[in-house]
Amino acid sequence: MQEFTKFPTKTGRRSLSRSISQSSTDSYSSAASYTDSSDDEVSPREKQQTNSKGSSNFCVKNIKQAEFGRREIEIAEQDMSALISLRKRAQGEKPLAGAKIVGCTHITAQTAVLIETLCALGAQCRWSACNIYSTQNEVAAALAEAGVAVFAWKGESEDDFWWCIDRCVNVDGWQANMILDDGGDLTHWVYKKYPNVFKKIRGIVEESVTGVHRLYQLSKAGKLCVPAMNVNDSVTKQKFDNLYCCRESILDGLKRTTDVMFGGKQVVVCGYGEVGKGCCAALKALGAIVYVTEIDPICALQACMDGFRVVKLSEVIRQVDVVITCTGNKNVVTREHLDRMKNSCIVCNMGHSNTEIDVTSLRTPELTWERVRSQVDHVIWPDGKRVVLLAEGRLLNLSCSTVPTFVLSITATTQALALIELYNAPEGRYKQDVYLLPKKMDEYVASLHLPSFDAHLTELTDDQAKYLGLNKNGPFKPNYYRY
Amino acid sequence: MQEFTKFPTKTGRRSLSRSISQSSTDSYSSAASYTDSSDDEVSPREKQQTNSKGSSNFCVKNIKQAEFGRREIEIAEQDMSALISLRKRAQGEKPLAGAKIVGCTHITAQTAVLIETLCALGAQCRWSACNIYSTQNEVAAALAEAGVAVFAWKGESEDDFWWCIDRCVNVDGWQANMILDDGGDLTHWVYKKYPNVFKKIRGIVEESVTGVHRLYQLSKAGKLCVPAMNVNDSVTKQKFDNLYCCRESILDGLKRTTDVMFGGKQVVVCGYGEVGKGCCAALKALGAIVYVTEIDPICALQACMDGFRVVKLSEVIRQVDVVITCTGNKNVVTREHLDRMKNSCIVCNMGHSNTEIDVTSLRTPELTWERVRSQVDHVIWPDGKRVVLLAEGRLLNLSCSTVPTFVLSITATTQALALIELYNAPEGRYKQDVYLLPKKMDEYVASLHLPSFDAHLTELTDDQAKYLGLNKNGPFKPNYYRY
Amino acid sequence: MQEFTKFPTKTGRRSLSRSISQSSTDSYSSAASYTDSSDDEVSPREKQQTNSKGSSNFCVKNIKQAEFGRREIEIAEQDMSALISLRKRAQGEKPLAGAKIVGCTHITAQTAVLIETLCALGAQCRWSACNIYSTQNEVAAALAEAGVAVFAWKGESEDDFWWCIDRCVNVDGWQANMILDDGGDLTHWVYKKYPNVFKKIRGIVEESVTGVHRLYQLSKAGKLCVPAMNVNDSVTKQKFDNLYCCRESILDGLKRTTDVMFGGKQVVVCGYGEVGKGCCAALKALGAIVYVTEIDPICALQACMDGFRVVKLSEVIRQVDVVITCTGNKNVVTREHLDRMKNSCIVCNMGHSNTEIDVTSLRTPELTWERVRSQVDHVIWPDGKRVVLLAEGRLLNLSCSTVPTFVLSITATTQALALIELYNAPEGRYKQDVYLLPKKMDEYVASLHLPSFDAHLTELTDDQAKYLGLNKNGPFKPNYYRY
Amino acid sequence: MQEFTKFPTKTGRRSLSRSISQSSTDSYSSAASYTDSSDDEVSPREKQQTNSKGSSNFCVKNIKQAEFGRREIEIAEQDMSALISLRKRAQGEKPLAGAKIVGCTHITAQTAVLIETLCALGAQCRWSACNIYSTQNEVAAALAEAGVAVFAWKGESEDDFWWCIDRCVNVDGWQANMILDDGGDLTHWVYKKYPNVFKKIRGIVEESVTGVHRLYQLSKAGKLCVPAMNVNDSVTKQKFDNLYCCRESILDGLKRTTDVMFGGKQVVVCGYGEVGKGCCAALKALGAIVYVTEIDPICALQACMDGFRVVKLSEVIRQVDVVITCTGNKNVVTREHLDRMKNSCIVCNMGHSNTEIDVTSLRTPELTWERVRSQVDHVIWPDGKRVVLLAEGRLLNLSCSTVPTFVLSITATTQALALIELYNAPEGRYKQDVYLLPKKMDEYVASLHLPSFDAHLTELTDDQAKYLGLNKNGPFKPNYYRY
Repeated sequence: MQEFTKFPTKTGRRSLSRSISQSSTDSYSSAASYTDSSDDEVSPREKQQTNSKGSSNFCVKNIKQAEFGRREIEIAEQDMSALISLRKRAQGEKPLAGAKIVGCTHITAQTAVLIETLCALGAQCRWSACNIYSTQNEVAAALAEAGVAVFAWKGESEDDFWWCIDRCVNVDGWQANMILDDGGDLTHWVYKKYPNVFKKIRGIVEESVTGVHRLYQLSKAGKLCVPAMNVNDSVTKQKFDNLYCCRESILDGLKRTTDVMFGGKQVVVCGYGEVGKGCCAALKALGAIVYVTEIDPICALQACMDGFRVVKLSEVIRQVDVVITCTGNKNVVTREHLDRMKNSCIVCNMGHSNTEIDVTSLRTPELTWERVRSQVDHVIWPDGKRVVLLAEGRLLNLSCSTVPTFVLSITATTQALALIELYNAPEGRYKQDVYLLPKKMDEYVASLHLPSFDAHLTELTDDQAKYLGLNKNGPFKPNYYRY
Repeated sequence: MQEFTKFPTKTGRRSLSRSISQSSTDSYSSAASYTDSSDDEVSPREKQQTNSKGSSNFCVKNIKQAEFGRREIEIAEQDMSALISLRKRAQGEKPLAGAKIVGCTHITAQTAVLIETLCALGAQCRWSACNIYSTQNEVAAALAEAGVAVFAWKGESEDDFWWCIDRCVNVDGWQANMILDDGGDLTHWVYKKYPNVFKKIRGIVEESVTGVHRLYQLSKAGKLCVPAMNVNDSVTKQKFDNLYCCRESILDGLKRTTDVMFGGKQVVVCGYGEVGKGCCAALKALGAIVYVTEIDPICALQACMDGFRVVKLSEVIRQVDVVITCTGNKNVVTREHLDRMKNSCIVCNMGHSNTEIDVTSLRTPELTWERVRSQVDHVIWPDGKRVVLLAEGRLLNLSCSTVPTFVLSITATTQALALIELYNAPEGRYKQDVYLLPKKMDEYVASLHLPSFDAHLTELTDDQAKYLGLNKNGPFKPNYYRY
Repeated sequence: MQEFTKFPTKTGRRSLSRSISQSSTDSYSSAASYTDSSDDEVSPREKQQTNSKGSSNFCVKNIKQAEFGRREIEIAEQDMSALISLRKRAQGEKPLAGAKIVGCTHITAQTAVLIETLCALGAQCRWSACNIYSTQNEVAAALAEAGVAVFAWKGESEDDFWWCIDRCVNVDGWQANMILDDGGDLTHWVYKKYPNVFKKIRGIVEESVTGVHRLYQLSKAGKLCVPAMNVNDSVTKQKFDNLYCCRESILDGLKRTTDVMFGGKQVVVCGYGEVGKGCCAALKALGAIVYVTEIDPICALQACMDGFRVVKLSEVIRQVDVVITCTGNKNVVTREHLDRMKNSCIVCNMGHSNTEIDVTSLRTPELTWERVRSQVDHVIWPDGKRVVLLAEGRLLNLSCSTVPTFVLSITATTQALALIELYNAPEGRYKQDVYLLPKKMDEYVASLHLPSFDAHLTELTDDQAKYLGLNKNGPFKPNYYRY
Repeated sequence: MQEFTKFPTKTGRRSLSRSISQSSTDSYSSAASYTDSSDDEVSPREKQQTNSKGSSNFCVKNIKQAEFGRREIEIAEQDMSALISLRKRAQGEKPLAGAKIVGCTHITAQTAVLIETLCALGAQCRWSACNIYSTQNEVAAALAEAGVAVFAWKGESEDDFWWCIDRCVNVDGWQANMILDDGGDLTHWVYKKYPNVFKKIRGIVEESVTGVHRLYQLSKAGKLCVPAMNVNDSVTKQKFDNLYCCRESILDGLKRTTDVMFGGKQVVVCGYGEVGKGCCAALKALGAIVYVTEIDPICALQACMDGFRVVKLSEVIRQVDVVITCTGNKNVVTREHLDRMKNSCIVCNMGHSNTEIDVTSLRTPELTWERVRSQVDHVIWPDGKRVVLLAEGRLLNLSCSTVPTFVLSITATTQALALIELYNAPEGRYKQDVYLLPKKMDEYVASLHLPSFDAHLTELTDDQAKYLGLNKNGPFKPNYYRY
C-alpha cells in the first residue's frame, strides 16, 4: 500500500482544482452565490435531519435547501443533454441494474446530473465529496431529498472529509461493487481500511491526473487488484479540457482579473502543447502579438507554421506585456526573468500546478506585495516597478474563470460510460490493469454531444465500409490516430 | 432654448452609460470595491470639510479618502501614458495658461488624470459629475486634496446633481472661458441660467452622442453662440470605442454573465456596422458560427466577403444559441422572435440603447421572470422554455464588462487636445458652429499612443512628401478617407 | 487642353494594368490561351470583313472567331448575374433608349457583357480598346457579329490605337451623347479633335485613377464642359478592388511565381491602407509572421490593434523572407534595403505603380540579373546572394494573378448605373463638375450582387425608418460613413 | 511473394503523384519549363554518353544538360538547409561510409540534394526513377556528371522503367546493402528477381502509403526478411504533407484552375482529418462559409468547436459553390449529388486518390464534357447546367499546384536519417519488421528545420529534466502523444 501512504494534501492537486472552479468564482457562480455557509455553526454531523420520505440516510448541511438545489440541477440538465439522452437510450435495459456504486467527486449541480443518471440506469449510489470546499450545499440537499445517500458539505474539516468517505463505504448490509473516484482518496481509503471490499469490486473509474498516476504505480507494483479505467486521457476529454476550454478561459481569466485590452499587446506563451495552442490561437485572434517558447522541436515547428515566433524567454522578457506559462514544468519563469520584466507586466499560469512561476523567489523583503483585487497581486520593486501576479501562480483558469457546463458534460458522460463498460464487460475482457476507454466508447461520448450543435453525422454505406475495412458503427480510427 | 427643455433623464443615455461601466461592475473594479457609500448618511452638502492646505473649495463625500484615491489615480496613470506624455511635451509652454475650464464628466481615476493634465498645462478647473452614480468618492477626495474645485459624490439626488453643476458655474470672481461636457447637462444649465457666461466662453468640447446631437440642433436653429468641438466622431475614438473595444467586450460580457462556451455555438448578430464587425470577428475566431442581419446592402456585402451568411432574423431565430443586437434601431428583436427562440437562448444588446430588444413585450402575466444572477434574467414561458436576457436589454458591454483604461485614454487625450485647439485658435478660425477635431490632431492623438505598443512610425523623406503632395508632419489622408 | 497634352504612355498606368491582368496571365486564362495573334500578319485595317448580317461596321482581327467568343461571353455571364439582373429589371423601360454611347475600355468577355447590357437597355454603342494588348480577339469578333460597332484587336500599334478611337467618334450621321472611358484617352481625343461633340454629350463616366485625376484637373481649371461621374471611388468598387481582392491575390501572385510556403515566413508589408490590410490579413491567416511599416499614426494604431508589429523597414530588413510594398509612394524599398536583405528574399509590389521599389538602382554592373521564370528575376550580388524580384517591381496582382470576374462585375455594374443616372438626370441635377456615384446607387450596386451569395436583406418597418430618420429604400448612411 | 504479384499501375498511387506535382504544373515549374523531351527521339538506352570524367556508368536523356541541372540543384539547396546542415554535422564521421544504396524515387532537384547528401556522408548510390513522367532530365544529367550512377529519363516506357531499376540492382562487383524506395517497385523487383540480395541488405526505407502497406502485408505474412522503416507516418512528415501543405495548396489549386473568388463562397469539405482541417482553416480565413461532412463523431465534434456546421452532403449540395473531398473513401460524391449541384459548382478532390468523386458516373451520353483549360472540365447537363470538374477527380494539389521545396526537405531529411539509423543500428535493435522512425529522430528532423525560421529552442535545466523525468536531449513526448 506504499503508494497511498503519502497522505494527499487538500490543495494544489489538479484534479480537484480543475472542477472546483465552478464554485471558486464566488460572485458570478449562481449556485455559490446562494450558498450560505455562515448561518449555522452546528456541524452537520451533529444534526438530526430527515427528508420528506422519512429517510435519514445522508448527511448534508441543510435538507431544507433541497428545493433550491433541485432548480440548480434542472438548469444544469439543460446543458447536459448528452447525459439525459444516455438516460433515455439506456433506461429500458437498465445497464447498471445491480450496480452498487460508491463515489467521491465534487458535488455540484453537474455531478448531481451524473449521479441521478447512474440511478436512472439502475445503480444504487453512495457519495462523498473529493474536496472540502467545493460542495454546493443546496445540491447535496436535493440529492438527499431524492434518496441518494450523500455525505458532504462545504467547509468540511479534514476529519469530516474521511468520516464522510467512511460513511459511504462502511455500511451494514450494503457492499459496493464499483468505485468512481476523482483524486484517488476514496480508492486509498478502501485499500487502507477495507481491502476485502475489492473482492466484490468490478472496477474503478478514475478521472484525475493524480489518481490515474497512482493507479499506474499500483499496477506497475503488481498491487492493483481490480481493473481500472483511466478516463482522464480519453480524446474528447483531453481536447475539451485543454485545447478548446483553455482557448476561451485564457481570455476570460485575464479579463476578469485585469481588464487588460488584448489588441496590440505582446504576449509570450511558454509551452506549445494543447493548452499553449489554445492560448496562442485565442490571443492572436484578438490582436495580440504572441511569442512561444518550447523545448520540443516538433511543437516548436508547429508554432512556426501557425505563425508564432519561437524564442527563448530571456530574448523577449523585457518587452512583453503578458507572460503565460503552460509547460507542465517547474521554474519556467524565474526571479531573474521577473526582475527584468517591464512595469505592469502581467504574469500568470495555465499549466498543471503552481510550480511554473517561481513565486517563492518573490517572497523577499525588498519586494512589496499589494493585493489589489481578489486573485490579483501587485509585486512592487524598490524602483516602483510593478509586476501583476495572478492567482499567486496557481492555475488561472481554475482560480479566475469558470469551466463551462458543456465541458463538464463531456467528462460526466465519459465516466458514466466507463462504469457501464466495466460493469457489463464479460469475464476476462479486463485484467487487473489500467485501461483507456475503448475508442468506440470515446466516439460514442462524442456522438452524444453532437445534437447540441445540430450536427449531422454521415453514415458509411456497406460498400464504403468494406472499402475502408471499417465497421459501419466504428471505431473509425486506429488507436494511434492523432486527431 | 427649446432644445434643452426636455429634461434629460439619468438613464438610457449612451454618453453616461458608456463611461459608467467602470464602476458598475462592482466586485471586480478595484476602486468601486473600496467605495463605501453606506457608512455615513450625512449629505456632503451639510458637511464642513477642509483639505490639508486649508481650502474648503470643494464638496465631496469624505476628504479623508484622498490618499486611497491618489493611489487609484497613480495606477490609472500607468495606462494613460499618452496623457502623461502630453503633459511633458506641453508643460513648458503652458498652452492652457489662463484657461478657466468648467467640466462635467464622470469622475473616475481616468478622468482625474485628464483633469490634472489640464491643470498641469496651465488651466484652472471646476468640476462636477455627469452621472449621479458613477463618481468614485476616493478619487473626488484626492482631486479636492490636490486643490481642484470638485463637487461630486456617488449617489447624488437630482437636486444635488444640479446644485453641484451650479456650484461650478456660479462663482464670485471667477468666470469660465471653456466648457468640457459629457451629455450636455452643463451646457444646458449655462444656456438656461447664465446665458451671459457665453460672452467669455471660447468653446465647448462635447463627448457624448446625446450632447453632440443637441449641439447640432442648436446650430441648425441658429442658437449656438460659441464654437463647439464634436470629439465623439473622431476616427480614433470611434474605432476604439466601437470596433476594437467591442471585439473584446462581447466575449467578456457573455462570459461574465453566462459562462457560455463559444465553440460551436450558433450566433446571430443584428447589424454589421463597426460594433457588429467587432462582435462577429471575435465570435468567429473563437469557433462560433455567426449569422448577420443587415438593412444596408453595402454592409451586407461586406459581411458576405468576411464569411458570414446574411439572413433575416426570422430565418435563423429557431436555431441560434445567442442573439446580439447592434443596429442602433428599435424593436429589432420582437416578442414574436422571442416566442420562437429555443430553450436557453441568450439575448443581449451591444447597440446604442435599450430599445433594440422589445423588453417591454416580455412584461406580460404569462411569462415568469427569474433573476438568476446580477444582470441575468431567465424569462420563462408557460411550457418551461427559458430565454436568458442580459442586462434587461441595456448595453451589455457597459453593464457587464469593463472599458479598458487604454480606450478611456484615447478619449481623454482627444478631449485635452480639443480644448487646447479651441483655446488657442486664432480669431476667426472657428465660427459659431460644431466642428470635428482637425485630422492632424486626430493623427496626433494616435501618435501619442503608439509608444505603448513600441510601434515605430516611418517618416517621409522630403522627396517622398513632395511626390505625394503631403506635408511631412501630416495630415496624411483626405477627410473622406475611410480607414 | 493643357491637361491632355501629356501624351499618355501605354504602360504603367494603374487603370489599364488593373484590367489587363485577365489576359496577361497567358497560360491560365481560358480566353487568352485560344487567342492566336500570330496566324495572320495582315493588319485588320486592311481586311474586308462582313458579319453574317452583312454589316461591315466594325474592325476586328477575324470575324470568324465570333462563335468561340460568344461562348466566352456566355461563361462570363454566369458570374455577372448582377448585370443580367439589371438587364431584366430595366429592360421594360429601356432607360438608355436614345443613348448613343462611345466607349473605350479593355475588350474582354466581361466588358462584352457590359456592352451588351447597355444595348439591351436601349443604347447604341461604338467601342474601342483602351489598351493595345488586352483585347480578346474572339470576344471582339462576337461583339461585331452581334452588331456592335467595335474597333479593336490585340497588338495594335499606337497609330492603330488612335485610329480605332477616331473611328468610334468620327461617324457620319451618328453623334455620341455619352462617353464611357477607362484611362481618359477617349475623352482626351474628343477634347482635342472634336470639341463640338461636347455640346451633345450628357456626361462622361470614367473608371481609372488616371482618368479621374485629369477630370478633376479640368474641373479645377474650369475647362470641364459636361458632368462627369467618378466611379473609381465608389465604396463597393474600392473595397473589392483593394481590400477583398488583394487579400486573395497577394497569396495567388506569390504562389504562382515562387511556390513559396507561407507558414512561418517573416513578411514585412509597407503600408497599412486597404491593400495593406488585405495582404496582412491573408498572410497572417496562413501562418506568416507579418510586420507593418506606416507613416500615418492612425493606420499604424490600427495595425497594432490588428496584431502586427509596426516597425521601420530598416529594423527588420535583414530578417524577413518577403517584402511587399503597398504605399502609393516611391522609393519605399531602396538599394540600401536591397543590399541588406538576406539570401532568397522575395520582393514585390502591390501598390499603385512601379515606383515603390527602386528597381533602377539594381541595374548596375556588379549585379547579375537572371530571369528564372516568367515575371521572376533573380538579382545576384557578387557574394552570391540572390534577391527574388517579381514582375520587375510592377503590380504583382496584375502581372502574376488574375482579377476574379466577380470583381469586374462590381465595376461594370457601377459603370452601367452611372450611365443611366447621368443620361436620365433632370436638367440641373449635375453641373459641369466631377461627381461621385450617389450613395443610393452605390447601395443598389451592392444589392444587385447579394443574390450571388444567397444573402437576404432585412427591410425596415415604417416605424423603424421613422425612428432612424431614414427612407426605407436608403440611402442608409451619411456620406462620411467609413464602412 | 504473393503481395507483389499484382503489378502496380503507373497512375493513381499516392506516393508518386504526391511528388510528381513539381513537374506536372508545366508552365510555372522552372525546371520543367526548360525540359525539352521532344527534341530528340532516340531512346537514351541506345545512346553512347560519357561524362566529363570519362564515365559511362549512367543512362540519361542528354548528359550535356548537366550544367543547367546543376543550377537547379543549387537553387533547391537554398531551401533545403536542413539537409545541407546534416551534411556538415555528419561529414566528419561519415555515418554512411560503406553503405551501398540502391534508390528508386522521383528524380528532381530536391531528390538530387538528398542523393548528393547521402554520397557526402559516405554512401555509394545507384538510382532509378519511381515514375515514368516525373524525371527532370537536366537534373539526372547533373547527377550523372557528378558521378552518380543514375538511370532515368522523362517519358520512359514501362519496359524502360524496369530496365532502369534492373540496371541499378544487377551490377557485377557491386552489391547493395540498403534500399530507399518510394512506391515499392524497387523492393518488388528485388524480391522477385534477386531474392539473394536481401542477405546483405541491412534495411529498407519506404516513403509511400502504397509501399508501406505492402511491407506491412509482407510482415504479417512472415515474409519480410529485413528490417524496414516506414517514414510515411512520422509526425513531421504527416503534419507537413497534410495539414500545413494542404492549407496552402487548396487555395493555390483552386485559384490556378478557376480564378474563383473565395470571399462569400459556400464550400463543403468532406472529411475533417488533417487534410480537411487544413482546407477548412484556409478557406474560412479567406471569407468562405465552410460546411463539413464527417463519419467519425470525434472529428465531427472538433469541426463544431472549430466553427463549422457539420452536415450531410445532401443537405447542402444544392447551395454550395465548391465541393472538396478529403475522406480517403470512395464514392463520397455520387452522380445523384452531381445532378443536384447548382450551375458553376466546382468539384475537386484533395484526398488520397481519384475514387472519392464518382467521375465514371459522368461518362454518360446525355452529359457533354468540355475541356476549358488544362485540368479543368465543364460537364454540361442537358438543361445547360455546368459543373466544373478539376483534374478529373484526381488529387488537386498534385495536379494543379506545387509542393513547396520546404515540405520536400522534411521528407528527404527523414529519409536520410532513417538510412543512417538502419545502417548503423547495433545487431538486434531491429528485427524483420516494419518500424516507425524513433521519436528522437523525428524530433531531430524538426530541429534541423528550425533555423530556417530563426526559431530558438529552450533547453531544459538539469533540474527541470529531472522533475519531468526526461532526458535533456529528448525524446520529449510519449509515443502516443497527439500533437
